[in-house]
Amino acid sequence: MGSFGVWIIGARGGLATTMIVGAVALAKEKASSAGLITERDEFQELGFSPFEDMVIGGHDIRSTSLTECAQEISRDTGTITHDLLEACREDLEKIDKEIKPGTSLNCGEAILSLRTSEAEPETAADALSRIRDDLSSFKERHSLEHVVVVNLASTEPLLEETPEHKSLERLKHAIANDRKHVMRASTLYSYAAFDLGFSLINFTPSNACLLPALEDLAKERGALYMGSDGKTGETLVKSALAPMFKYRNLRVLSWQGYNILGDRDGRVLSNEKNKAAKVSTKDSLLPQILGYPLHTHVGIDYVPSLSDFKTAWDFIHFLGFLDTKMSLQFTWQGNDSILAAPLVLDMIRFAEFAHRNGEKGRMVQLASFFKSPLGVGAQDLHTQWHSLVDYVEAHRSARGTDV
Amino acid sequence: MGSFGVWIIGARGGLATTMIVGAVALAKEKASSAGLITERDEFQELGFSPFEDMVIGGHDIRSTSLTECAQEISRDTGTITHDLLEACREDLEKIDKEIKPGTSLNCGEAILSLRTSEAEPETAADALSRIRDDLSSFKERHSLEHVVVVNLASTEPLLEETPEHKSLERLKHAIANDRKHVMRASTLYSYAAFDLGFSLINFTPSNACLLPALEDLAKERGALYMGSDGKTGETLVKSALAPMFKYRNLRVLSWQGYNILGDRDGRVLSNEKNKAAKVSTKDSLLPQILGYPLHTHVGIDYVPSLSDFKTAWDFIHFLGFLDTKMSLQFTWQGNDSILAAPLVLDMIRFAEFAHRNGEKGRMVQLASFFKSPLGVGAQDLHTQWHSLVDYVEAHRSARGTDV
Amino acid sequence: MGSFGVWIIGARGGLATTMIVGAVALAKEKASSAGLITERDEFQELGFSPFEDMVIGGHDIRSTSLTECAQEISRDTGTITHDLLEACREDLEKIDKEIKPGTSLNCGEAILSLRTSEAEPETAADALSRIRDDLSSFKERHSLEHVVVVNLASTEPLLEETPEHKSLERLKHAIANDRKHVMRASTLYSYAAFDLGFSLINFTPSNACLLPALEDLAKERGALYMGSDGKTGETLVKSALAPMFKYRNLRVLSWQGYNILGDRDGRVLSNEKNKAAKVSTKDSLLPQILGYPLHTHVGIDYVPSLSDFKTAWDFIHFLGFLDTKMSLQFTWQGNDSILAAPLVLDMIRFAEFAHRNGEKGRMVQLASFFKSPLGVGAQDLHTQWHSLVDYVEAHRSARGTDV
Amino acid sequence: MGSFGVWIIGARGGLATTMIVGAVALAKEKASSAGLITERDEFQELGFSPFEDMVIGGHDIRSTSLTECAQEISRDTGTITHDLLEACREDLEKIDKEIKPGTSLNCGEAILSLRTSEAEPETAADALSRIRDDLSSFKERHSLEHVVVVNLASTEPLLEETPEHKSLERLKHAIANDRKHVMRASTLYSYAAFDLGFSLINFTPSNACLLPALEDLAKERGALYMGSDGKTGETLVKSALAPMFKYRNLRVLSWQGYNILGDRDGRVLSNEKNKAAKVSTKDSLLPQILGYPLHTHVGIDYVPSLSDFKTAWDFIHFLGFLDTKMSLQFTWQGNDSILAAPLVLDMIRFAEFAHRNGEKGRMVQLASFFKSPLGVGAQDLHTQWHSLVDYVEAHRSARGTDV
Repeated sequence: MGSFGVWIIGARGGLATTMIVGAVALAKEKASSAGLITERDEFQELGFSPFEDMVIGGHDIRSTSLTECAQEISRDTGTITHDLLEACREDLEKIDKEIKPGTSLNCGEAILSLRTSEAEPETAADALSRIRDDLSSFKERHSLEHVVVVNLASTEPLLEETPEHKSLERLKHAIANDRKHVMRASTLYSYAAFDLGFSLINFTPSNACLLPALEDLAKERGALYMGSDGKTGETLVKSALAPMFKYRNLRVLSWQGYNILGDRDGRVLSNEKNKAAKVSTKDSLLPQILGYPLHTHVGIDYVPSLSDFKTAWDFIHFLGFLDTKMSLQFTWQGNDSILAAPLVLDMIRFAEFAHRNGEKGRMVQLASFFKSPLGVGAQDLHTQWHSLVDYVEAHRSARGTDV
Repeated sequence: MGSFGVWIIGARGGLATTMIVGAVALAKEKASSAGLITERDEFQELGFSPFEDMVIGGHDIRSTSLTECAQEISRDTGTITHDLLEACREDLEKIDKEIKPGTSLNCGEAILSLRTSEAEPETAADALSRIRDDLSSFKERHSLEHVVVVNLASTEPLLEETPEHKSLERLKHAIANDRKHVMRASTLYSYAAFDLGFSLINFTPSNACLLPALEDLAKERGALYMGSDGKTGETLVKSALAPMFKYRNLRVLSWQGYNILGDRDGRVLSNEKNKAAKVSTKDSLLPQILGYPLHTHVGIDYVPSLSDFKTAWDFIHFLGFLDTKMSLQFTWQGNDSILAAPLVLDMIRFAEFAHRNGEKGRMVQLASFFKSPLGVGAQDLHTQWHSLVDYVEAHRSARGTDV
Repeated sequence: MGSFGVWIIGARGGLATTMIVGAVALAKEKASSAGLITERDEFQELGFSPFEDMVIGGHDIRSTSLTECAQEISRDTGTITHDLLEACREDLEKIDKEIKPGTSLNCGEAILSLRTSEAEPETAADALSRIRDDLSSFKERHSLEHVVVVNLASTEPLLEETPEHKSLERLKHAIANDRKHVMRASTLYSYAAFDLGFSLINFTPSNACLLPALEDLAKERGALYMGSDGKTGETLVKSALAPMFKYRNLRVLSWQGYNILGDRDGRVLSNEKNKAAKVSTKDSLLPQILGYPLHTHVGIDYVPSLSDFKTAWDFIHFLGFLDTKMSLQFTWQGNDSILAAPLVLDMIRFAEFAHRNGEKGRMVQLASFFKSPLGVGAQDLHTQWHSLVDYVEAHRSARGTDV
Repeated sequence: MGSFGVWIIGARGGLATTMIVGAVALAKEKASSAGLITERDEFQELGFSPFEDMVIGGHDIRSTSLTECAQEISRDTGTITHDLLEACREDLEKIDKEIKPGTSLNCGEAILSLRTSEAEPETAADALSRIRDDLSSFKERHSLEHVVVVNLASTEPLLEETPEHKSLERLKHAIANDRKHVMRASTLYSYAAFDLGFSLINFTPSNACLLPALEDLAKERGALYMGSDGKTGETLVKSALAPMFKYRNLRVLSWQGYNILGDRDGRVLSNEKNKAAKVSTKDSLLPQILGYPLHTHVGIDYVPSLSDFKTAWDFIHFLGFLDTKMSLQFTWQGNDSILAAPLVLDMIRFAEFAHRNGEKGRMVQLASFFKSPLGVGAQDLHTQWHSLVDYVEAHRSARGTDV
């Protein structure tokens, strides 16, 4: 195998920085495999590309350097230690040079307020063309076999459906005519990636990133993709626990979930428009798993002092035998970037593996990584996990390595 | 189908009373199906026997009447309402007459202290013979097709392994020679049940109930059986949640569980000897699910004010990416009898169904109901559930009703 | 001492019903003194009026009878048992006849939707005159020494300040001219009570109930009064815990509080306008106790399945030595009516006692019972408690019974 | 003011190291005042000695250097950051030279297992004389005005009462005759401190440290002292919350507390004998505050992965109006050393201040800092706090600075 590229939308954010530091550390054997599925014995023998072969670049609308970002994380949460930062500093500075100015086209107030690198106003077509050039020159510059694009940018406001979203022709037309209000930044990133046959992973809930028209383009070009919204914390626990109530025929009366967090993501989500996108993907899985409508609530509040340590309290009220009411409550205290970063690395490796094996289209085997897995009905974490295990087993038996 | 019998060891306990009131209420359509798996649409069409066909009797070492027990529950926890009690009163009085004096042979201090019906001292052989007579005359008196015996008695102290446990001949010999210290009450109940070809469900952790020698007897007589220790609360949640950590390669560092409860069961478990039996079944499943040894602790404390409302607090400390420590904690507040009663009813129906279908031996399909399922390695709740679903599917497709 | 009256605004609500059942049960010695301060040894000897001397009446806009309300509570939460209800039934029916149709004048959508007794449209002046007649005829009919009016009605929307609120003359003028938008129902109830020299306790957060102009009227007539917003659950815990952080110079960074509840009060509060009134009284005490501004949040969500069992989760993030972040979280599970009812009874007895002793104006000694105690700066529960103890001590030493 | 000394028993433990780093950082203005009472505006003006004037030394039975200890803390919990450690390194090395070999005389298995600096076997009298010499030469060497000795060593097993504890003469005799079993290491440290007229603070629960005979010696020499067992975490919350239940006449039925921690202290406490000493001081305050006996439990379990981040879960079950059961539960997540260190610094300053003002004997004003405050009946945190405030006020008004 030769080198392969990873192109990150939102490359200077907390998640991206954590992921990059982790990838560098793994390549240097300065980090353990904790949190990485692709490092588990039974998966590893599939033959994933080593971290040393990963070349990283990306787009961002902020100008703070990767090293500064890493220092900020080190100070705020301590997840990147002083020693680790020193060990990776040189690589971070090198990667930093591969990060190009992004676009915040029609991304709304909350995201605009983050922008620190002043960009020239440009038309949608110009932005698209610039992005595509960045992507293709990255591939050429490093002689990469393949590039996986991952969207780790802040959650955009929900984009309301318009006819342009359902027809590739109409979408092209809208871009050509600079009809910015029917698209967002993520639309252009996906367009460019698919157009070049690159793989794309939408780790955000932003729906503008994987419109039906874009899926059509991906199919045309034989590109791999999957989304949306990484399942890292409270929703992960939800999708692991909810089946239990089904297995016992205990009727869930109410499931209240309160999330508090203090990172940049939390700040953007404190904007009602951006929050709406998030809550909708967090709240839909319970009726699907349980099989009936129920009283649910998902709250997200910005609590700066927590920085990236998200805390979530869920209260589950349920009915048992003789209509007795009982309850389960849990408090989840996790670091969002630390939980998300290995998922992204795992998916990048799965995408690169799939590309190497000539696969195309939706990567439904990755359902367990998402809150809203594209084209997958099952929201139950266990069912999703077994579909990933089945995928791996199929590949192993195909090559005669089945255990 | 004709009538079938249910014979309860510990028939006047809180769980048995709740289960009996529930069964009567279901037969009268005065209770909902909440908590019952066998009432779920996809299972129901298998053709389980209706609750009206259930005839109930049992043994107990306490003399309080069923109605008094039900009143006590009504007053202490409110799970049996005043109206429900009135609706069932007559049936309870009828069933009460089918409850015979039990045995507390070699059951230890804690259980002896519960005994209120004075029993004549008797040899093991006499006790066995008396029990067998009670069982067979119950079957005859009501012209029952089959009888399912369920052990719902208080947890006995762990019985240390002796050679008598591994050989049916030696066990028979020990009974004949009144060597009481190698057996406990539950040994005799099982012996009698198996000897008569009845089905047996050990809902308790008492290991004296399903010794290898007794399994041999069951095989000889073609009896059905399963155990041990109903999985109703904290352990249920554990077995649903633990796989999640595996799916994410998050290493569990410590899993501390603290159970507080105030019912008769809690009082018996406040005796260190009886607690040991319980803790051992509660604590073993994590290493099995996760695949590595870890720091675990299971505490059980008696808190009288809680009566049957068990509260459990679990703290799970785990390691993620970049060796960051995170945590999940949950508080479970459930009513033990209310959680257990429908499981017992479900298993009785599954046993009666299996007997009607000519099945024999261990009912491994019932693994999801137990903390220590006999002959089943998988402790993961989801895997266990799917094995039950597979069992049901197999029967449905066999009769051409598969969906 | 002769009889004294208790007149309840919102007399058929859950809190009022619980309080009435409790008062009747106490008079009949069918209830314990749990929850009642005035029954504590050191307070009792002050000589509070016995519950037998209490005559109860009130206003409500709902027509459901007290007995029906009590049955609903019995069924939903079990706090009023079947036996207690039977023991009180006759008295409830008698009291029910003393409940007159209330007014929902300018109370907003949420409260209007509760109205079941159809009232003739009336002017503010007519409503006031009708209320005053109800109050004075109640006193006469039962030859009462004094009447204490308590406002237990649903929370009204916040009333914005207008010049009429600061001048008794202008308020009279507004009533005479039917300028309904500058007052709410509670304004008229207070007006009538003060005008007759009755005592008034505003247990709700409704600010229209104790306007400065109304306080002027109270002073003119020598009436006793206190408010606002009973401190029963999460806020009680807050005001007990917050001083601890001050005592240790631990800086509270964030204090997030999430309340979920399912009773009629919860339904009314799910209306944003009514919630605003509540949140403002719940959220202001922390900066006062701690002495600095901090990040706080109070959420209230309606979760019908909980009925009157309110659950609150608070997360407190604080900074210690070497700027280390630590946390405390608590979950409060209380029954709102059960917590509030004895406070109301205690305050009624304190008010009757104060009236008998010739006191007038604000009853600041009752500060510990309120979220926003009128004219009291100290929000710290302990300081408030000691001011009550001091009041009691002063009376005891005055009569030479000091210990 | 001149310099004053601080002599720490257990000077290389986690708490001592944190306290020393903190004191050095405060002297260098590299740390905030968070957690320090003596830095609050209203206390500060009393005129406490500045941290620059503190000269630190101590005893320990471990040989690991202070810098190594600080590095271990930095790695395990991150509370001492890399930058802070660098800033203090030189001072730590200097202080390290002032730490002399301690004694583990009759301290039991758990403490002996910590000993890394090999000590010559010695008689009690020799040990005492050696300790006294270390203390007095420390004072002379640095020309100190006064020395405050603080006991921060691991919890010793409870010492059973013997006649030697009640008579200074008999205790002297026991030391002279090397009757080691009637004393422990802390007895000798206290003896030496008091004999020299130094102040002593017993921050541990070890009862051998403040025997009545030792108090007699302190009185003879005019020494200041206080203890025992610093109130830093779960017990602190308990003593702040319990009064609330009294103020509302809510009867506490059960108060269960579970503490899990993973530091050296936790390891020593995992020994049943050492745990007994701790539990007894943690468990006694509730009946004192509430005024009645109740069901309580205090669990302490060793969970290595937590290191110094102690987590405690308390479940409080209580009875309200109409005998309704309700509950409050809290989870405390604090860093023990971080919570304790500023208390120790505060008390050192209070002791030095008291000595400068010619005070003698028990420092009862420091009650709020202890789980078992010597000679103080009130366990209520608020009452304790007000007694400290009163002490401060008295001094301020004495010098005419009262506000």
